[in-house]
Amino acid sequence: MNYLRTMRRVLPTVETFVQGIRAGNRVVLGQAITLVESARPDHQALAQEVIAELLHPTNSNPVRTDVHPGEQQPTTNNPTLRIAVTGAPGVGKSTFIEALGTHLTQQGQRVAVLAIDPTSSVSKGSILGDKTRMEQLSGNDMAFIRPSPSGESLGGVARKTRETILLVEAAGYDTVIIETVGVGQSEIAAHSMTDLFLLLLLPGAGDELQGIKRGIVEMADILAVNKADGERVKLANQARAHYLNATHLFPPKPNGWTPKVLTCSAEQGTGIAEIWQTIEAFKAHILDNGFFQENRKQQAGYWFKETLQAGIQKAFFSHPKVRKQLETLEPAVLAGQMSPFAAAEAVLKSWSEKF
Amino acid sequence: MNYLRTMRRVLPTVETFVQGIRAGNRVVLGQAITLVESARPDHQALAQEVIAELLHPTNSNPVRTDVHPGEQQPTTNNPTLRIAVTGAPGVGKSTFIEALGTHLTQQGQRVAVLAIDPTSSVSKGSILGDKTRMEQLSGNDMAFIRPSPSGESLGGVARKTRETILLVEAAGYDTVIIETVGVGQSEIAAHSMTDLFLLLLLPGAGDELQGIKRGIVEMADILAVNKADGERVKLANQARAHYLNATHLFPPKPNGWTPKVLTCSAEQGTGIAEIWQTIEAFKAHILDNGFFQENRKQQAGYWFKETLQAGIQKAFFSHPKVRKQLETLEPAVLAGQMSPFAAAEAVLKSWSEKF
Repeated sequence: MNYLRTMRRVLPTVETFVQGIRAGNRVVLGQAITLVESARPDHQALAQEVIAELLHPTNSNPVRTDVHPGEQQPTTNNPTLRIAVTGAPGVGKSTFIEALGTHLTQQGQRVAVLAIDPTSSVSKGSILGDKTRMEQLSGNDMAFIRPSPSGESLGGVARKTRETILLVEAAGYDTVIIETVGVGQSEIAAHSMTDLFLLLLLPGAGDELQGIKRGIVEMADILAVNKADGERVKLANQARAHYLNATHLFPPKPNGWTPKVLTCSAEQGTGIAEIWQTIEAFKAHILDNGFFQENRKQQAGYWFKETLQAGIQKAFFSHPKVRKQLETLEPAVLAGQMSPFAAAEAVLKSWSEKF
Repeated sequence: MNYLRTMRRVLPTVETFVQGIRAGNRVVLGQAITLVESARPDHQALAQEVIAELLHPTNSNPVRTDVHPGEQQPTTNNPTLRIAVTGAPGVGKSTFIEALGTHLTQQGQRVAVLAIDPTSSVSKGSILGDKTRMEQLSGNDMAFIRPSPSGESLGGVARKTRETILLVEAAGYDTVIIETVGVGQSEIAAHSMTDLFLLLLLPGAGDELQGIKRGIVEMADILAVNKADGERVKLANQARAHYLNATHLFPPKPNGWTPKVLTCSAEQGTGIAEIWQTIEAFKAHILDNGFFQENRKQQAGYWFKETLQAGIQKAFFSHPKVRKQLETLEPAVLAGQMSPFAAAEAVLKSWSEKF
């Protein structure tokens, strides 16, 4: 918040942001995300300029001079990977992400962790809001953790997260993990901006007890039964067998991948390396069959259409002339004195004449 | 189709339609529905005029001179009832509707049966397309049966059905039954235009085997286990107990009604009277607590907004200027060279300047 107050006086230039982000400067990256999350029109305009500059084909994938030892620069042959991680509350998402993230940084990779939680707000605690939950990873130079943007609508939160992905990738983070709360529409949003969908499960309990909707289970590319430690190993193996059976009944996925079911203990660090190997096998699979590229295209197209649709709805319904018409017509419609279709037609007609 | 060919020469006047419908003339009613279902702009315009005239507050609820013996004229105190009937294929929807409809006409009520089936088309068979499936009811003067309108989108089919409800009610049918296929989005559409949601179930099988989504079961006000006859009575009672348990776990419904679970055999006609009694108790309940009126208001508002949204989307995306912009911007977005949000912003900006 301090930063926003400073920005109110002088906003840094596009160039400052672009150079800072490309150099992997975490402070500048954080400031750029704050711009993306801001509701102020001048912040929004600047954020769009920064993103446009970072995405510009002739400017992208520059050879950075600050590459960390052992770090591989993302290239067209080895693009970044976007992973959605979800699961019911209590399944151990934070511990899992910390374990997976640490495993990656130990291999010289840079990992960014973002979150989609439309229920979060500045005042309330939210997932990732409390960085102490990922103590080890948040103190790691190779990792970048950002709590969920707050917002009134899932659409707004999702949009901000989608833009933040572009920023952290431009800053050189090759794996982006999107955490969601696992109980509703946020998963659909996360699915629409990632390459891989990973669902965490508890040992022993079926979908219903875990509060997971059937559609969410079907979206998963990898199912990981967490807390497979001590006395729970047996239960975890039972759950694994159960979900393995269930995945056989699912319709084939458009990415041509058969969902894998694994067990792990994020707390003890067991099974994490195997999960990462499976993630890498998945990545190789979808790069090989072209789904990776096709899916990213479709996702970009989806967000383009979504933003256009939301934009025209907003412009239309907030237009003074439309509002005035609605004030007259809506009561008649609600009272059943006018067909909703005839009333809508009347509004649309007067509007399309102006267009 | 013969009728449409005739109409191409001379369209009847609004007055002809309104008088014919109000007089309960089935041929004129059928012609008016054909207008509603037609894609021709002049048919659409005439249909809207007819509906507007029928809904006009000073003209509605006229004292008809042709009221059948024993028939109650719908009034503000005893309005029409709109019932959605759904269930998996093979559950016996047609037989059930025939049994329920016949029960109603025997009590002197007039019943209209409509359908929502977006998969239907003129060439393919569809639910209700084959009237022989409701032989008894289709030969009944007090009943009016209309197959699902055909259409490419559920939105279009649903809209036509919504308008047809207004027509059949104006023609004096006091109970309107909307049949859906029970496997997807059609139920949501039927739910958004009815007062009561009735789900038919098979004896013995759980939701999963019946192919019914959990959300659909939760929408039901009345669950009826059909085919409770002969050796299946025991299984039907087990299913009843199962669903009774399940309904206790559902969140409370906004209409303040606890879903009832009953058994019946549409083929043998048993349990039908009890189901109708429960339907009447439900109607009294929601009339008493005001949900009936409030729900109809909200439904009208919902259809108004839906039609407006669909209309502006269509006008926007089919506008030559927008199409031209999309042709240039979309490839850049799909190739990842331009942020979907920046591209959308560019289109919206040039558009809002015109508005």
